[in-house]
Amino acid sequence: MAGFQVIEVKESIFAENDRQADALRQKLKAEKTFLLNLMSSPGAGKTTTLCRTIEALKGELRIGIMEADIDSDVDARTIDGTGVRAIQLHTGGMCHLDADMTKQGLEAFGTENLDLVVLENVGNLVCPAEFDTGAVKNAMILSVPEGHDKPLKYPLIFTVCDVLLINKIDVLPYFDFDMEKVTEYARMRNPNIQIIPICAKTGEGIGAWADWLLQQVRDWQS
Amino acid sequence: MAGFQVIEVKESIFAENDRQADALRQKLKAEKTFLLNLMSSPGAGKTTTLCRTIEALKGELRIGIMEADIDSDVDARTIDGTGVRAIQLHTGGMCHLDADMTKQGLEAFGTENLDLVVLENVGNLVCPAEFDTGAVKNAMILSVPEGHDKPLKYPLIFTVCDVLLINKIDVLPYFDFDMEKVTEYARMRNPNIQIIPICAKTGEGIGAWADWLLQQVRDWQS
Repeated sequence: MAGFQVIEVKESIFAENDRQADALRQKLKAEKTFLLNLMSSPGAGKTTTLCRTIEALKGELRIGIMEADIDSDVDARTIDGTGVRAIQLHTGGMCHLDADMTKQGLEAFGTENLDLVVLENVGNLVCPAEFDTGAVKNAMILSVPEGHDKPLKYPLIFTVCDVLLINKIDVLPYFDFDMEKVTEYARMRNPNIQIIPICAKTGEGIGAWADWLLQQVRDWQS
Repeated sequence: MAGFQVIEVKESIFAENDRQADALRQKLKAEKTFLLNLMSSPGAGKTTTLCRTIEALKGELRIGIMEADIDSDVDARTIDGTGVRAIQLHTGGMCHLDADMTKQGLEAFGTENLDLVVLENVGNLVCPAEFDTGAVKNAMILSVPEGHDKPLKYPLIFTVCDVLLINKIDVLPYFDFDMEKVTEYARMRNPNIQIIPICAKTGEGIGAWADWLLQQVRDWQS
């Protein structure tokens, strides 16, 4: 334990987009549109979870999906098959969305007639967490194969998220993933975080998640 | 397919650290130290793979490990248990290492008596790929649960990597992961990429990987 050195190579990260994010939230409030910022690692299951969420809520809410990707449109094509409006944002190599990029996307989209817009952020646990996109709530997906230690290693994203979906619970038997530990570690970062285990592939837990999200949208609109 | 718009929100990404990276490589060449930059998503298995790699090569090579993490030292503690030299770099929130940060770490380490230094980069498929760290070779781990479509969505990292380890092959039966497709997609990005399937948990494939790495180190030193 004492055999290694710790070197600090700190650099300041600038995030002066808070004002723009607040302005965007005010505009969304006036329009009664709820923006959810969905973050995760690559491959944690954002798009599959979104397809299930759309299925569960499209009778209740007018939904739009903004897919942020570096340069493919694989996910927008998938979402397009669900019958809700989808738009693809190309970040041109950028590792996250900021409030201004999100605003550009929303303006191209036209949000007046939408109750819920989900921004599927770039797959990355680090940079997206640094930038307030203007979303009303932040959600994160952590999948079982990634391991229960992630709140120790990527603290900020767990701090800024209102809800944590633990996805791929169908493969729990094949991985050393401790649900109690992940809960403990995530609550160390954010005592108020909601934790909802799901399996986007089978649909397990999607009802609880959709109920939570619907309540948030209704609270925002009232 | 025609139902969604594509919006370009390009921003330029600056990477003028190439000169520093080249200078660092020259210094390493003179010292006969091989630096490997290891990248992956969070939870793909970098640390477990490193432990196996150390086991396989510590009789042949003098090895040092630099763990780059945002602010934990979980991984350095794990590596410390393997008996090789380990150092923890704290990036202070930064999502990647650049050549200068790598140089600071190597200087603190003292590389004169090391044949192989592995830099375990921050878990992230986007930003680390943008910055030449000064490494001799770049390696990437993609784990089966992340899905075979990743070269489509995160093109740059597959382009800059010399070798791709496909980890967690023990869980192939439980995931829709197509080895032929991932090979095809990865080679679209980089026709020369070496692809080695492994399971760091069981040790499967580690021999082939260790052989490849040992050859690279010997070539660099000769």
